[in-house]
Amino acid sequence: MSFQIPAYVAPNFSDEALRAAPDAVLTPAPADFVAPEEYHATSIYPEYFKIDGHWMLAEQSRMDCVVIYDGEDLLVKEFRNIKRGDKVVVGRTEDGSEGILVHPCGFSDSVDTHESFAFRQSRSCETAFSIDYDLLYELLRHDREHGHIVWVLGPACSFDADSRRAFTTLVERGYVSALLAGNALATHDLEGSYLNTALGQDIYTQKGYPNGHYNHLDTINRARLHGSIERFIEAEGIDNGIIHACVQKSVPIILTGSIRDDGPLPGVLYDAYEGQEAMRAQLSRATTVIAMATALHTIAAGNITPTFRVLPDGIVRPVYFYIVDISEFTANKLADRGSLSAKSIITNAQDFIVHLGKALEA
Amino acid sequence: MSFQIPAYVAPNFSDEALRAAPDAVLTPAPADFVAPEEYHATSIYPEYFKIDGHWMLAEQSRMDCVVIYDGEDLLVKEFRNIKRGDKVVVGRTEDGSEGILVHPCGFSDSVDTHESFAFRQSRSCETAFSIDYDLLYELLRHDREHGHIVWVLGPACSFDADSRRAFTTLVERGYVSALLAGNALATHDLEGSYLNTALGQDIYTQKGYPNGHYNHLDTINRARLHGSIERFIEAEGIDNGIIHACVQKSVPIILTGSIRDDGPLPGVLYDAYEGQEAMRAQLSRATTVIAMATALHTIAAGNITPTFRVLPDGIVRPVYFYIVDISEFTANKLADRGSLSAKSIITNAQDFIVHLGKALEA
Amino acid sequence: MSFQIPAYVAPNFSDEALRAAPDAVLTPAPADFVAPEEYHATSIYPEYFKIDGHWMLAEQSRMDCVVIYDGEDLLVKEFRNIKRGDKVVVGRTEDGSEGILVHPCGFSDSVDTHESFAFRQSRSCETAFSIDYDLLYELLRHDREHGHIVWVLGPACSFDADSRRAFTTLVERGYVSALLAGNALATHDLEGSYLNTALGQDIYTQKGYPNGHYNHLDTINRARLHGSIERFIEAEGIDNGIIHACVQKSVPIILTGSIRDDGPLPGVLYDAYEGQEAMRAQLSRATTVIAMATALHTIAAGNITPTFRVLPDGIVRPVYFYIVDISEFTANKLADRGSLSAKSIITNAQDFIVHLGKALEA
Amino acid sequence: MSFQIPAYVAPNFSDEALRAAPDAVLTPAPADFVAPEEYHATSIYPEYFKIDGHWMLAEQSRMDCVVIYDGEDLLVKEFRNIKRGDKVVVGRTEDGSEGILVHPCGFSDSVDTHESFAFRQSRSCETAFSIDYDLLYELLRHDREHGHIVWVLGPACSFDADSRRAFTTLVERGYVSALLAGNALATHDLEGSYLNTALGQDIYTQKGYPNGHYNHLDTINRARLHGSIERFIEAEGIDNGIIHACVQKSVPIILTGSIRDDGPLPGVLYDAYEGQEAMRAQLSRATTVIAMATALHTIAAGNITPTFRVLPDGIVRPVYFYIVDISEFTANKLADRGSLSAKSIITNAQDFIVHLGKALEA
Repeated sequence: MSFQIPAYVAPNFSDEALRAAPDAVLTPAPADFVAPEEYHATSIYPEYFKIDGHWMLAEQSRMDCVVIYDGEDLLVKEFRNIKRGDKVVVGRTEDGSEGILVHPCGFSDSVDTHESFAFRQSRSCETAFSIDYDLLYELLRHDREHGHIVWVLGPACSFDADSRRAFTTLVERGYVSALLAGNALATHDLEGSYLNTALGQDIYTQKGYPNGHYNHLDTINRARLHGSIERFIEAEGIDNGIIHACVQKSVPIILTGSIRDDGPLPGVLYDAYEGQEAMRAQLSRATTVIAMATALHTIAAGNITPTFRVLPDGIVRPVYFYIVDISEFTANKLADRGSLSAKSIITNAQDFIVHLGKALEA
Repeated sequence: MSFQIPAYVAPNFSDEALRAAPDAVLTPAPADFVAPEEYHATSIYPEYFKIDGHWMLAEQSRMDCVVIYDGEDLLVKEFRNIKRGDKVVVGRTEDGSEGILVHPCGFSDSVDTHESFAFRQSRSCETAFSIDYDLLYELLRHDREHGHIVWVLGPACSFDADSRRAFTTLVERGYVSALLAGNALATHDLEGSYLNTALGQDIYTQKGYPNGHYNHLDTINRARLHGSIERFIEAEGIDNGIIHACVQKSVPIILTGSIRDDGPLPGVLYDAYEGQEAMRAQLSRATTVIAMATALHTIAAGNITPTFRVLPDGIVRPVYFYIVDISEFTANKLADRGSLSAKSIITNAQDFIVHLGKALEA
Repeated sequence: MSFQIPAYVAPNFSDEALRAAPDAVLTPAPADFVAPEEYHATSIYPEYFKIDGHWMLAEQSRMDCVVIYDGEDLLVKEFRNIKRGDKVVVGRTEDGSEGILVHPCGFSDSVDTHESFAFRQSRSCETAFSIDYDLLYELLRHDREHGHIVWVLGPACSFDADSRRAFTTLVERGYVSALLAGNALATHDLEGSYLNTALGQDIYTQKGYPNGHYNHLDTINRARLHGSIERFIEAEGIDNGIIHACVQKSVPIILTGSIRDDGPLPGVLYDAYEGQEAMRAQLSRATTVIAMATALHTIAAGNITPTFRVLPDGIVRPVYFYIVDISEFTANKLADRGSLSAKSIITNAQDFIVHLGKALEA
Repeated sequence: MSFQIPAYVAPNFSDEALRAAPDAVLTPAPADFVAPEEYHATSIYPEYFKIDGHWMLAEQSRMDCVVIYDGEDLLVKEFRNIKRGDKVVVGRTEDGSEGILVHPCGFSDSVDTHESFAFRQSRSCETAFSIDYDLLYELLRHDREHGHIVWVLGPACSFDADSRRAFTTLVERGYVSALLAGNALATHDLEGSYLNTALGQDIYTQKGYPNGHYNHLDTINRARLHGSIERFIEAEGIDNGIIHACVQKSVPIILTGSIRDDGPLPGVLYDAYEGQEAMRAQLSRATTVIAMATALHTIAAGNITPTFRVLPDGIVRPVYFYIVDISEFTANKLADRGSLSAKSIITNAQDFIVHLGKALEA
C-alpha cells in the first residue's frame, strides 16, 4: 500500500447561485490592528472570495484571521497585522451568497475511497492504532520526497536515550523538514548531548549526577558564552542528539520562548508574535505536521495550520495533522476542530517515536 | 548484559536481640472468618516468626493476611479463610521483639550493584524508559527458562491487530506462564478471532460492521453454546488471537468476573473469592508479573503478590511487578506500596506490547 | 424554576407501516444460558414488540439482554438467566418491520423545550457546570418526593470529613433512596466512623496514626465478629458516617464485591451475578442515578439502567444518569452510550458532594 | 482557629563552622547574559552569603538565578539580566563552607506545631481536602489584611457563570491583590461580560449562539478599537466579570501572551521576558499564591516564587503556594519542588472557586 494524494474537488463555480453571487464586500480597516465591523474570519478550510466577478481561493490561509485584498492577491492576516485602510472582506455567511464561499468537503470523495484517513472523534487509549501507524509510515515516505514534514516537539522525547536516537534517525533519513519547539526541548536535548543527562539524570541509566540540577543551567550558560547553538555544538564537540542532527542536516529549528523558560538558549524567539510568524513560515509549507507531547506548541501550531495546501503546481492537497499525547484532553482538544483536521494518537511520545524510528530506519 | 538473580541477605539470626527474642504469641481465632484481637497482618516483605525457639519464614506470603501456625508450617491466610481455633500470630511490632521480624531490605545490597532495578517514586510520562525496556527484556529472557511469568491483562490490547499479534508471539516464545484477565479481555479477543472485530469495529481498519454491536454478544452466546472456550475454538476453527495462543500452548487462563460483565463466557469465575484463590495459585509461583491496562485486576494482583519468592531449591529471589498503564494515577497507585515492589511504565499498552513483541521475537 | 417530567411521545401505532408489521418472531432457546441464532438484543431505549397483533412495551428493560415472551409479559433477561425453551424474540431490525420497534426519541420534543437537560458530547473540565448543578438540585427535589434516587459510590467520598458530612445530610433529607457500592466504600466509611481514620489517616487532619494501616482490617474484623454491619454499628456505638446514616434511615445498601477486596465486610455480595441482580432490583426502580468516583460500579450500573422508566400510573419518564468523576476518560465512557443517557460532570467527588450538601440542606 | 505566621528560625550564625567560614567568592561575569564558571544558582529557600565577614540574606530571591553583589546589596538576577563584570557568587556547596548557606528548614519547628500546613507528597483526587479548605480560608482572611494574595488563572473559571460570580466576590472582598493570567482568561471573561458567552456558548445555559464562534474575536477587536481594556469596559458599559471587578478595585492585572494567542487584547505582554519581569514584580511581594487551571502560568509563577518573603518589618515568613488543577500530573509537577513549597488540590477549578466564594462571602 502506498500513499496517494487524495483528489481535491473544487466547488462547482458554474453553479447558478455561485455565478449570480455578488462580489465580496471589502471595507477598509478603521485603524491599525483593528478590523471593520462584520469582518469575515477564516476557518481551517479552503475559502473562496468573489473579486471582480471571479472566485479566488485564499491560498495561504489559517484560521481566525481576516482576508485582505491588496488589489492583486488575497492575504490572510492576523488581526495584529492589520494596517489602517487595508481592504478587509466583510460578511458572515459561508454559502457564497455574499461572495464568500467556505468549502469544507473538497476531499470527502477521496476520503470515501481511502476511508482510513478519515478522522474519527473521541479517540482514547483504547482506540486501535495499528492502521494509523501503517498509514503514517506510508504518508511520511511519500512526503519525504514530495512534501514538507513539520515536527512540533515537547521536551518529553529528549529525556530518553532511545527516543533521542530514534528522532535522530528520522532527521538523518529526511523525515524532518522543520522542527518547532520551545526552549525546554532544546535545552534538555543539548544537556543530554553535552553532559549525558536530562534534568541531571543520566539519560539512559536514570541515575542522578552530583549537582546534576545545575546541568541544564550550565548547558544554557555555555551556549550563551559561545553565542549560538551552532557555535556551541562546534566548540564543545557535540556529536549526538536531536538538535545536533537538525543542525547537521540544515533542518530549520524554530524555538519559541515562553514565560516558563530559564535562560533562554541563544536563538530562542521570546516575542510571542515574532514566534508565530516564524512558525507560520514553516507551517504554511507543511503537508504533514506531527505534534508531540506539548499542549502549548501543539495548539499554537494547530491554530496556524489549515487543512489544505496549494502545491507549487496548483494542486490542492490535504495537510495531515497528527497529535501524539498521553493525555486525551490535550490530544482531543485540537482534534475537535473538525474532520480531516487532526488525528490523535494517545500514547507516550517515547514509544511513538521509537516505533517510527524502527519502521523508517531502512 | 544478562539478568542475574540478586542475592538475598537473610536477617542475622545470630544477633543477640533476635536470639533472645521470645516465641511469637499464637492465639486461637474466636470464630470462623474472625482473627483474634491484635492479630499480626502481613506485609509484602519476607516475614519471620519465632516458633519453638526457631525463626521460620512464612514462605507463601501475601499482604493483609494473618499468619497461622498449623503445628508444622506457617500459613498465610486471608481473613475469610480463618477457621475457629486456628492459631493466629498476634503482635504488631516488626523488629523481632515479639517474635515477629519483618525484613524489607533483603535485596538492598544487590540492588546497589544493580541499581537500575531499584524502583523510583513518582514516575510520569516524562520518565525515561529505555533502560526499563532493556532490563525487562533481559529479565523475561531469564525467567522464561528459570521463572514463572504471569500476565494480567485489561481489554485494551485485544482491540488492536498489532498488539494481538505481538502478544501471540510472546505466548509462542514461552514468555507467558499464565494469563489473568477478566471477561472483557477474553470476549474482545475472541470476537476478534471469530468475527474480526472488537466491539464491532474491524480490528485493523477500524471500520464499523453493520450490526457490529452484536458481535461481542454473538461471540459469547456461541461460546456458551459450545460449552467452553476450548470447544468454541475448536468447533469454530479459531486460529488466531491471545486466547487461542494460550490454549494452544496450554498456558493457564484465569478469567475472573465482575459486576460489569455481560455474558459471561464459559469458565469465567464470578465468585470474587474463588477468583482470588485461582489468581493466588498462579501468583504464588510468579517471579515476574506484568499488569497492563486494568486497574481492577492490577490492584487485585498487586494485593496478592509478595516481593519475594522461595524457589524450589530454597533460594529467595525478588518478584518483579510491572504496571503498564496510560494513567499515572493507576500506575502509581500500586507503585506506592514500597521499594522493590512495583515499577510503573506510563504508556499505551499497545505500544508497550508491540515493543516487547519485536524485541523478543528472535 | 422547578422540575417537570418531560412528556413522553409514544410511537404512532396508527402509522400504516406499524399496523401492517408482522408479529415478532419468537424462537425457543436451544439450551440454558444460550439464545437462539439472530436473537434480538436490547438497547437502552424503549422497545416495542408486536405480539398477537399488539405492540407491547418491554417495561423493565436494560441493554444487551434478550426479550422473552412468557405468554403474558415481555421479560428482559440477561443471557445467563435464559432457560432452555424460553421464547426469545429474534430479529435485528429496529424499525418495526419484523415486529421490533426501538424508539429512541420519545422525549425529544420535551427536550427541545427544556433544552438544558439535553446531553452534550465531549464534556471536559472546561465545560461550564453551573446550570447542571441548578438543574440537578431541582431534579433531586422533585424525585425525593416522586422518584427513586440511586447513588453509586466509589470510596473517594468516604475519605474526607466534609464529604461524609455532606452525604449524611443528603441521606437524612431523603435524597438517597438506595446506595450501591463496593467493599471499599463501606470499609473506609466505617473505619472513619469507628476509628476516625481512612486508611490510617485522620479523616480531617490527615495525620497518620501509629499502626494506622491496621485500621481498615481491624474494622472489617470487628464487623465480622459482630456478624453484620447493623450489629457492628449498634454494638460499637457508631454514630456518624455514610453507612450509619443509611442504616438509620433504612436506605437499602447493596455492596458488591470484587477481586480487589480485603475481608470482606459481612453482607458483601461476592458473586458478581448475584450482585448484578441486587443492583438491578434497585436500578429498575430508579428515576435518577448519580454515580461518583468509581469506574467499575458506574459502568456496571450504566449497563443495567435504561433511559426510561414506566411509573406505577403508566407514565413513561426519563431516567437521569449522572456520572461524576475526575477522569474524563471514565466520565465520558458511559456518556458515549447516546443522547438522553448520561450526563458527566468532571470534578472531584468531594467538591461535588459538598456543593449538593449545602444546596439541599434547607 | 485563626492563622498565625509560623516563626522563622534563622541559622545559628554563632556556630563555629559558620563563624570560621570564608567569604563567598565573587567572580565577574565574562559577558552580558553569561555567568562565570561554577556560578552558584539559587534555590527556592532562604540563602545566606558571607560578604566582608557578615552573613547576608538574599532577600528578593527566586530559583535558578545567580546572586550578584553590587557593593551594597545581594541581587538575585536571571541569567538574561547579567551584565559583563557583575560580581557573581561562585561555588556549589550549600553548607556555609564556601560562604554560601542554603537554609531550607527555617520554618520546620513551627511546622511541627501547625502540622497541617506541612506539605505532603503524592496528593491525588482521593486525598481528603477538608482541612486544606479550612486552612486556606483562614490564611486568606489573614493575608487580606497583612499580606499580598496573587492569583494565577487559566481560562477555565471564566467559562462558567457561578465561577465568574464567585471570583468577583473574592475581588470585591479584598482577597485578590494581583491577577496574573494570559490572553485567553481575559478574552473569555470579557466575551462573557460583553456578549454573555464563552467561546460562543451562553455562560449559563451553555446554548450555542448563531455565529458565536465570532464572539471572542469580536470582543478582542472591539477592545483594540477602544485601545485598552479599561476604555473598552467604560465605553461598552461592561458591568460584570473577573476583569471588570479587578479594574473596579484597581487590582493589578498582568496579562502575558503566548504563541497560542489570537489577537491579542491590548495590554497583553507578548515578550516572554518582559512578561516574567511583570510577574516577578507581583510575586516578589506575594505571601500567598493560588494558581488555578493553567500549567503554563502555574509553572512560570512557581519558578519565580521563593518559599519565603521578608516583610517590611524584617520578619521572614513563608509564602504559601497552592496549585488547583484537575490533572494530577500538572498539580504534582510543581509540588515536587520540595517541602513548604506548594500544596496541590486536585479538582475542577469551578468547584474550588465557588467553595471559596461561598466561604469568604460574609
